[in-house]
Amino acid sequence: MTQPPLTPDALERIRRAVDDALQGFHGFAPLPLEPPPPPGPETIARYIDHTLLKPEATPDDIARLCATAREFGFASVCVNPRFVPQAVAALRATPVAVCTVVGFPLGATTTGAKVHEAQEALDAGATELDMVQAVGLLKAGLYRAVAEDIAAVVGVAHPRGARVKVILETALLTPEEIAAACFVAQAAGADFVKTSTGFGPGGARVEDVALMRAAVGPNLGVKASGGVRTYEQALAMIAAGATRIGASAGDRIVRQAQGREE
Amino acid sequence: MTQPPLTPDALERIRRAVDDALQGFHGFAPLPLEPPPPPGPETIARYIDHTLLKPEATPDDIARLCATAREFGFASVCVNPRFVPQAVAALRATPVAVCTVVGFPLGATTTGAKVHEAQEALDAGATELDMVQAVGLLKAGLYRAVAEDIAAVVGVAHPRGARVKVILETALLTPEEIAAACFVAQAAGADFVKTSTGFGPGGARVEDVALMRAAVGPNLGVKASGGVRTYEQALAMIAAGATRIGASAGDRIVRQAQGREE
Repeated sequence: MTQPPLTPDALERIRRAVDDALQGFHGFAPLPLEPPPPPGPETIARYIDHTLLKPEATPDDIARLCATAREFGFASVCVNPRFVPQAVAALRATPVAVCTVVGFPLGATTTGAKVHEAQEALDAGATELDMVQAVGLLKAGLYRAVAEDIAAVVGVAHPRGARVKVILETALLTPEEIAAACFVAQAAGADFVKTSTGFGPGGARVEDVALMRAAVGPNLGVKASGGVRTYEQALAMIAAGATRIGASAGDRIVRQAQGREE
Repeated sequence: MTQPPLTPDALERIRRAVDDALQGFHGFAPLPLEPPPPPGPETIARYIDHTLLKPEATPDDIARLCATAREFGFASVCVNPRFVPQAVAALRATPVAVCTVVGFPLGATTTGAKVHEAQEALDAGATELDMVQAVGLLKAGLYRAVAEDIAAVVGVAHPRGARVKVILETALLTPEEIAAACFVAQAAGADFVKTSTGFGPGGARVEDVALMRAAVGPNLGVKASGGVRTYEQALAMIAAGATRIGASAGDRIVRQAQGREE
């Protein structure tokens, strides 16, 4: 497994700084996740959030995305909030969840706006919410504000059985900031930490996934997203600790796993 | 002045298609704007929305942005929603407005989320709202849905004296789609049409600004944003019909106008 770019000592130091900043803060307990099965041609699809978040995507594009997700049995489709009702209707009575995004892709809107967006998505039937953390506040060391922002979304999602993934936007962060963000997300009750929006200056890197897994331990999900386009890349992310893959070409990844495509 | 890339006949045809799609739709009447004065070293600052929308911007970065805007007397600062209260406090008792963004930068969230975001921004003291249109719906020809989305934000902004700029994200659109988007925004009561988020595949182009001005006529504002970094570029945009310039280096543009910087 890839080594994370911070020593256990450095990780522990960052965790203590975050713990100090969060004193008196009471988040929500993380949900336990079972350890991931080894992925092969039959199981790789269940790792994939089949994703279309481009602003110019039309209802027809979303319909095709859902049809493919249904065919392959992906974990979810991940679509922009406006398309949640369409995706929920298209995927009713299938094992494919509907995932949407919150405060996406900058994470710089208000907590109130994020909560509203989450609530509307839950009302419409989404069961997974990928929210972007308040990146600038994290970089400024304002850990409590970042945690409160996440906990507010977790607070509406968990009572309704939905899961929250916190997008860190790792390409904008140092390893120290990635580790701090993981501890903050965990303390705030997030179910997953996730690398990237796909709209930042870079996507998922194996070393960042390894660092995130080292930081959150075994009980949180880690989602690698942004630039994961092949089965080989997906396997490397999973070996480093990812339990979910965000990809716009989930069908291609599965066909590669089955040896049907190069 | 730069010629727009569509003939008057083509424009008229698109306007009729939009009118047909909007039959029975009652938006809000556009606010008249006075014709822009010719910009020089003394007046160019009043064209500029001094802008910082990067997700990693910290409160310190926002403080510096506001101090510069105060010094130069820009039309506004444009910041992400989370920073509106800070900017309003920093710019109290100055002529600099606080502008924020809505549904930014993808425009693909729900109308409800956009309205909530607008409401919170207005409550916090913002007086200009740059909202992203529902790009994918515009491309699908769903003009009424796009207009309803805009009118919902206009409906909360106008009663409180705030202005709404509709970001088209021109780099994702054909000239025909840009023209249609202008007619839709105008019908929905927008105060400005605006080229770009700065997060799309391209920024403001002179020919797009000329087309937007030709489409909306004299009574709406046109904001050129995305990649406008020099006084010369700003003048070209204004000559093509822009009445507002979004720029992250407003101070540099003014210094160039004053001959204090190359």
